Amino acid sequence: MRILGVDPGLRRTGFGVIDVQGAKLSYVASGTIVVPTDVTLPLRLKVILDNLRQIVEDTKPDVAALEIVFMNTNPASTLLLGQARGAALCALADRDLAVHEYTALQIKKSVVGAGRAAKEQVQMMVQRLLRLDGIPAPDSADALACAICHAHIAPLTEKLSQMNYQTRTSRGRSRVRAGRLLG
Amino acid sequence: MRILGVDPGLRRTGFGVIDVQGAKLSYVASGTIVVPTDVTLPLRLKVILDNLRQIVEDTKPDVAALEIVFMNTNPASTLLLGQARGAALCALADRDLAVHEYTALQIKKSVVGAGRAAKEQVQMMVQRLLRLDGIPAPDSADALACAICHAHIAPLTEKLSQMNYQTRTSRGRSRVRAGRLLG
Repeated sequence: MRILGVDPGLRRTGFGVIDVQGAKLSYVASGTIVVPTDVTLPLRLKVILDNLRQIVEDTKPDVAALEIVFMNTNPASTLLLGQARGAALCALADRDLAVHEYTALQIKKSVVGAGRAAKEQVQMMVQRLLRLDGIPAPDSADALACAICHAHIAPLTEKLSQMNYQTRTSRGRSRVRAGRLLG
Repeated sequence: MRILGVDPGLRRTGFGVIDVQGAKLSYVASGTIVVPTDVTLPLRLKVILDNLRQIVEDTKPDVAALEIVFMNTNPASTLLLGQARGAALCALADRDLAVHEYTALQIKKSVVGAGRAAKEQVQMMVQRLLRLDGIPAPDSADALACAICHAHIAPLTEKLSQMNYQTRTSRGRSRVRAGRLLG
């Protein structure tokens, strides 16, 4: 399974692609889409849309993973981040990729083992888990961490979803959604 | 000039298309993209993206106009609205349409003549200005109002931009952006 992790932002959108074979993770690609700041908002969103679609075409992932965003205290920033995230999700949906979403807590727990890990710890653990020569840049590291989180959680989710099959059908709705077990 | 107005929302996205010849406005099309609520967020955004791209292909507008959104008091709603708006802007940018943005105040002043007009007044004035047989639905009316606002303001903006040409070139940047005259 090939996973594309994306860390959307209106200034910088990070991406990271990994392959998973059983418990073995391997690095494929990562980088940052640097969005120009001196053009209009629609053109900035188009940079994210176009680049992300190109990355999907180039790397051919089977599935995508994104961090569930927490609201900034500044509503204007929240709106801008929302629009960047909308553009990223459009690019993935436009290429018919299924998208799984994880909280920052899930990602840090999955990669570092602790929910309150510092940014540097995430970068270091991403480097170690993927056996990289150097420390990945922050945006790439966050995107790769998101992909690693999906690699760790997806098999569990699948098992849980099989276990809950009877519950699901009797209740008429899934208890496992977006990689999370619902109450 | 053919103008597409869009009123983005994650549940309902309104659109309205008008033609402008001199001071004469004429109605072309309008409607509401009803977004299903029982699918994942990426799929909901894709409904907006796909439908809006199709509307652009069908109606072939020269330019698009959107309302500048004001932040909801609820940050979660702001984030959702931002993502819907991001999808709408992506659809327009993806079809190489220039997008102009106007505040609610500009739109109401331009359509009703007063910045604090009620929703019903906007609907009524849209009906009158476009000589429609019936009152347009709220989402369509908002989108049509946005297109009418651009029809009213664009000629002024163009004149101002010509007047400011020397200032612009000497300062190196435009004083007129997104339909607004900058300080």
